[in-house]
Amino acid sequence: MRFDQRHLLGIEPLRPDEITTLLDLADRYATLNRSRQKRSGILSGLTQINMFFENSTRTQASFELAGKRLGADVMSMAMEASSLKKGETLIDTALTLNAMHPDLLVVRHPNSGAVDLLAQKVNCAVLNAGDGRHEHPTQALLDALTIRRAKGRLHRLTVAICGDIAHSRVARSNLLLLHKMENRVRLIGPPTLMPAGIGEFGVEVYHDMAEGLRDADVVMMLRLQKERMDGGFIPSEREYFHRYGLDAEKLAFAKSDAIVMHPGPMNRGVEIDGTIADDINRSVIQEQVEMGVAVRMAALDLLARNLRARPNEVMA
Amino acid sequence: MRFDQRHLLGIEPLRPDEITTLLDLADRYATLNRSRQKRSGILSGLTQINMFFENSTRTQASFELAGKRLGADVMSMAMEASSLKKGETLIDTALTLNAMHPDLLVVRHPNSGAVDLLAQKVNCAVLNAGDGRHEHPTQALLDALTIRRAKGRLHRLTVAICGDIAHSRVARSNLLLLHKMENRVRLIGPPTLMPAGIGEFGVEVYHDMAEGLRDADVVMMLRLQKERMDGGFIPSEREYFHRYGLDAEKLAFAKSDAIVMHPGPMNRGVEIDGTIADDINRSVIQEQVEMGVAVRMAALDLLARNLRARPNEVMA
Amino acid sequence: MRFDQRHLLGIEPLRPDEITTLLDLADRYATLNRSRQKRSGILSGLTQINMFFENSTRTQASFELAGKRLGADVMSMAMEASSLKKGETLIDTALTLNAMHPDLLVVRHPNSGAVDLLAQKVNCAVLNAGDGRHEHPTQALLDALTIRRAKGRLHRLTVAICGDIAHSRVARSNLLLLHKMENRVRLIGPPTLMPAGIGEFGVEVYHDMAEGLRDADVVMMLRLQKERMDGGFIPSEREYFHRYGLDAEKLAFAKSDAIVMHPGPMNRGVEIDGTIADDINRSVIQEQVEMGVAVRMAALDLLARNLRARPNEVMA
Repeated sequence: MRFDQRHLLGIEPLRPDEITTLLDLADRYATLNRSRQKRSGILSGLTQINMFFENSTRTQASFELAGKRLGADVMSMAMEASSLKKGETLIDTALTLNAMHPDLLVVRHPNSGAVDLLAQKVNCAVLNAGDGRHEHPTQALLDALTIRRAKGRLHRLTVAICGDIAHSRVARSNLLLLHKMENRVRLIGPPTLMPAGIGEFGVEVYHDMAEGLRDADVVMMLRLQKERMDGGFIPSEREYFHRYGLDAEKLAFAKSDAIVMHPGPMNRGVEIDGTIADDINRSVIQEQVEMGVAVRMAALDLLARNLRARPNEVMA
Repeated sequence: MRFDQRHLLGIEPLRPDEITTLLDLADRYATLNRSRQKRSGILSGLTQINMFFENSTRTQASFELAGKRLGADVMSMAMEASSLKKGETLIDTALTLNAMHPDLLVVRHPNSGAVDLLAQKVNCAVLNAGDGRHEHPTQALLDALTIRRAKGRLHRLTVAICGDIAHSRVARSNLLLLHKMENRVRLIGPPTLMPAGIGEFGVEVYHDMAEGLRDADVVMMLRLQKERMDGGFIPSEREYFHRYGLDAEKLAFAKSDAIVMHPGPMNRGVEIDGTIADDINRSVIQEQVEMGVAVRMAALDLLARNLRARPNEVMA
Repeated sequence: MRFDQRHLLGIEPLRPDEITTLLDLADRYATLNRSRQKRSGILSGLTQINMFFENSTRTQASFELAGKRLGADVMSMAMEASSLKKGETLIDTALTLNAMHPDLLVVRHPNSGAVDLLAQKVNCAVLNAGDGRHEHPTQALLDALTIRRAKGRLHRLTVAICGDIAHSRVARSNLLLLHKMENRVRLIGPPTLMPAGIGEFGVEVYHDMAEGLRDADVVMMLRLQKERMDGGFIPSEREYFHRYGLDAEKLAFAKSDAIVMHPGPMNRGVEIDGTIADDINRSVIQEQVEMGVAVRMAALDLLARNLRARPNEVMA
């Protein structure tokens, strides 16, 4: 089992055995994180820069803790995407940081594909922390680890992803990962929030929660991404909750041991009823956050190993 | 002498011998901080998160340096209290951070009681860095240490706390601490800035500086908290300084060796005359800042010892 | 060869042999930065505080990485210069931080002379990261190192500094350094962007790029500092590029092996043509950024050695 990637730009380029390798290592880091001595020196001497062109307190915190616990020198920078008018200037910013010799660069950007573009210009390992509607690979990996720990396996499960599919990089990365691992994925949401041509991904599409949730092992709710709905349909929150919000009544259609997930931050009473979110027998929402740090530690660790194996190529 | 607390939420729950234990340890850290080798590894492997829902450059800097000098992995987060509309959402934020397994959580919040509420939801040690008008325990402890170092003792002193008592958590925490240590506390300020029913705390209330400062060992000025005066009386700065601002003339009523304190940042010419603030024979304002780092190091250290003594309970 | 400074406030107080000592050490750090094990423990136990009263993502990042790679405890603070109405209050802020016992204080401030003023009030080593139109010593030092590495020497070169001379602390510090090292400096720019009385510095002043660039070894472009042009002449970008922007045609007047520099961030198509900026045979703009980290490591290291040699004076 090897992890052969130079960057972690998305789930798309990963082989199933690479996913398994990463999750196995993350499981070990999850154990470390529950102890009082959380520090490992594995990234000692390396520099990790977090460049967030889009605000995200929780994802940035998760990457920052992951790097610090592994002993890296971590620097987090809040970038203003608005001041970057052209792709050219994003590249200037990237080249400037690259010249400071980071080893690991964590990037979030509001434009799909911006992180891939940037990765071509630098000679460090790049981790995509979310780019537009494209990919958010560490989110899909932490969801996968959470599922595997709760269900004991990560294949032949029925996973329902519910809500605002069209604007969600989380849905896209999860869909890719769950397919690679041979699960059955259903997408549930209003037609206006379902991307065109999604059928060709080999998924089942539902517009009704009762039908879509039937016999699901995993119910994965999405955040309503109002900030990404430019000019399109915006549902009223009340109407949305009535038809697509997860409450006890709708959850009853899923398997009796189905787990409930949400990438956070939650809009309680919009996508999900607060009682369900807090039900420790069903909800694994806190564990998702916990696995987030572990998965990011595993990703940083594996990419750093690959960096060290290739010193001459990189240090030109 | 033991320090038995799980959290440091306020002065109210502390026993006098716990206060002494903490101040003794802080004295040793004050010596360390004056050396060039300031680093101790005592928090190595632990994670400290600073969550500031209210801006405070100096308190946040003090806690951040304290944690870093003790070897913790420190992450500081500026939170937007405005985006947290309901108490429920504060708790979601707390649970999210808790799932990342911090060991020490430093919290400042504009609402009284918010930090106590949060401490009930997490399984790490919580340090209150100021909540509304309620408590600011590390400020009272650093003031106590500064007094003890200047006066050689922390009992049977006459301490005058002057100014905007009503809006001040600093006054409240100091009052509690000074009473526990058997000092005589006087509050001086205009009736409009004096909390209702304050007499029942066993303090002497004055509205005239000349009377209140008579024979005081310690003159503790407060910052005028204009930002907390919602709709109430706001004095003109000039009138306020004339009646309650500390100048040489008013200070002459106190003992000839009385020390002058201010929690900062100062409004020179409003609460205090600049000449008094800069008089190194009377003012201990810089030493208060210095003791702040030492007291926070002691608090982090003692809480971490208690955490380590209880691994199973916490790591559930 | 010794470096005898207590602070690094500007190029003006430095002797030529001090500049050489610093650049020699920076050369060694440049090698370290290209390796995977970038960490040195030389500042271990010391506290570095970065106080930026003016926004500068790249300079702040460079100083932060420099301190972290040397093992210091680094704290970066974004200060609001606007809230500091008087010099008195800047000093209060400085005294407050000083009381927290930093060893190294990196300061950027919009007012010329503010950093010198502050250095008189604290007992740690102060590094000027740019103050108004006055000095930006680490920029001049990193430019010098870049030139020395590209040209094999740092004397008897013809260096053309082009553009907005009047508003540029970069130009001023470079001019001082290049003179000390016995180079020939030419300033090129429109009369409205040329400081009055600049002739007395012993430089040649040109208003025409073709004349000024003739036989230059180094072409150093400046950023158009629109934010510092209060009420004065603001050229149109198109007209400016036509007359003073560096393109292939104008560059042809310089020596055939002349290098092109820019302190960044670049306004492509205003001060410099994008093709020139990206030409790896002529442009050393990325290497300037790289040398920036190395030069700051050398400066921090040398100042820390001097601090340690004087423990009693400083620790009063």
